[in-house]
Amino acid sequence: AAMAGYGWARAVRGLLLDVSGVLYDSGADGGVPIAGSAEAVRRIKASGLKLQLCTNETQATREDFVRKLRALGFDVSVSEVTAPAPAACRLLRERGLRPHLLVHHDLIPEFAELDKTNPNCVVLGDAAENFTYANLNEAFRLLIGMEKPVLISLGKGRYYKETDGLKLDVGAYMKALEYACDVQAEVVGKPAKSFFESALAELGVPAEQAIMIGDDIVSDVGGAQQCGMRALQVRTGKYRPSDENHPQVKPDAYVNNLAEAVDIILQQL
Amino acid sequence: AAMAGYGWARAVRGLLLDVSGVLYDSGADGGVPIAGSAEAVRRIKASGLKLQLCTNETQATREDFVRKLRALGFDVSVSEVTAPAPAACRLLRERGLRPHLLVHHDLIPEFAELDKTNPNCVVLGDAAENFTYANLNEAFRLLIGMEKPVLISLGKGRYYKETDGLKLDVGAYMKALEYACDVQAEVVGKPAKSFFESALAELGVPAEQAIMIGDDIVSDVGGAQQCGMRALQVRTGKYRPSDENHPQVKPDAYVNNLAEAVDIILQQL
Repeated sequence: AAMAGYGWARAVRGLLLDVSGVLYDSGADGGVPIAGSAEAVRRIKASGLKLQLCTNETQATREDFVRKLRALGFDVSVSEVTAPAPAACRLLRERGLRPHLLVHHDLIPEFAELDKTNPNCVVLGDAAENFTYANLNEAFRLLIGMEKPVLISLGKGRYYKETDGLKLDVGAYMKALEYACDVQAEVVGKPAKSFFESALAELGVPAEQAIMIGDDIVSDVGGAQQCGMRALQVRTGKYRPSDENHPQVKPDAYVNNLAEAVDIILQQL
Repeated sequence: AAMAGYGWARAVRGLLLDVSGVLYDSGADGGVPIAGSAEAVRRIKASGLKLQLCTNETQATREDFVRKLRALGFDVSVSEVTAPAPAACRLLRERGLRPHLLVHHDLIPEFAELDKTNPNCVVLGDAAENFTYANLNEAFRLLIGMEKPVLISLGKGRYYKETDGLKLDVGAYMKALEYACDVQAEVVGKPAKSFFESALAELGVPAEQAIMIGDDIVSDVGGAQQCGMRALQVRTGKYRPSDENHPQVKPDAYVNNLAEAVDIILQQL
């Protein structure tokens, strides 16, 4: 029987999980798992619910990212990860675009197959320490020199939380280039609708039967709801109490962490 | 007698001049004068017109800036320079603000008198190579940790031209922090009305009798016109032909360079 107040947890067949701030807090040390999350992933799989990780992570290839998560105790595989770089590669190929990459060094292998000579677009990821003045200026000069500047941003997050504190995310640098070049970036990754639709296709469950669980009120919760999914905000990762007064976005429910969300959802099965 | 088409040049008693892109093109090598500009400054002074430099330069103290301009052949003095850092110091003092500075190393002496312990605002200048990821992240963390974040930006230019090409200006980084922290920066410098009003007060001429001459269609031309001045765009510095189709701003006239502007204005005296 449905428990009072948990109507949002009914009729679920699959879950999309954000990773950083939900499964673990990232950091230079490799990061630390969030208490109960590794066990929660195991319980989801044991329950028969489908699961897909839906991440804007662009500091590593999917292979390296999964290796790191497995080392932290998470039972996940590469096919269970939807990430912006492979989606961007599909888009670049479809449109015959040759990217100049301003991304984290460890992401570069994802673009190995693409022609990068004489670039006709800029691809921006969470480059972190690679966001030097010289590198941002190089991307700026390429863009402003194009007849029709094309800027593709892998996500548009404002910041994320690492073990040693908050870090500026790719969205801040996207805004810098948008302003300097008077262009609008195309976002590949959350909260873009096409990205959530890819994740749902890989999950194999329609939007009405899926729940997104994330720590970002705009990219995770708002984006998923725009696609017809339910969405929960966890009070871990970059969650801040002021998120609960967001003027545009209201999650279907707040949960203290992934483990609590899974407790409630499994009780409703 | 007024020459046909030069009505904009009548009844002038003083000129405000932008510096980078009008007097000289800046660069790591100290920059190079724009042909005819040093002679034009001399002719303005000889004519009895008043002159004030109105610059968003924030890579040096006014003293060092004037020393550089004099070495390039410009007959100018410190009292003839209106620049953002002294204006920001006045504002910080009036409001009891203790700044964290993200500015060019050579600008720091302008803030020597201010208390910078336990900062309650961030002051952003054209920090150039100081715009590392670590430095921008430090400013971000301070801002997002404030109960009421205060971000003061010394100008909001998109880019400027140096001898080796276009360079990202402070406005791009202002937009990055505005987005990351969900705040609106307070701009000290062009195109802020209060900044032009300070420059006019130092010029000692009312807006209706002054002409602003600059290479930036928005900061120079648009800002000056908002204050009731006439404004010319020179076709030097960062000028681009597409500026002539700007959707919001139309200068009172275009001139090829400062020398041509001064030719026309002196003929109308």
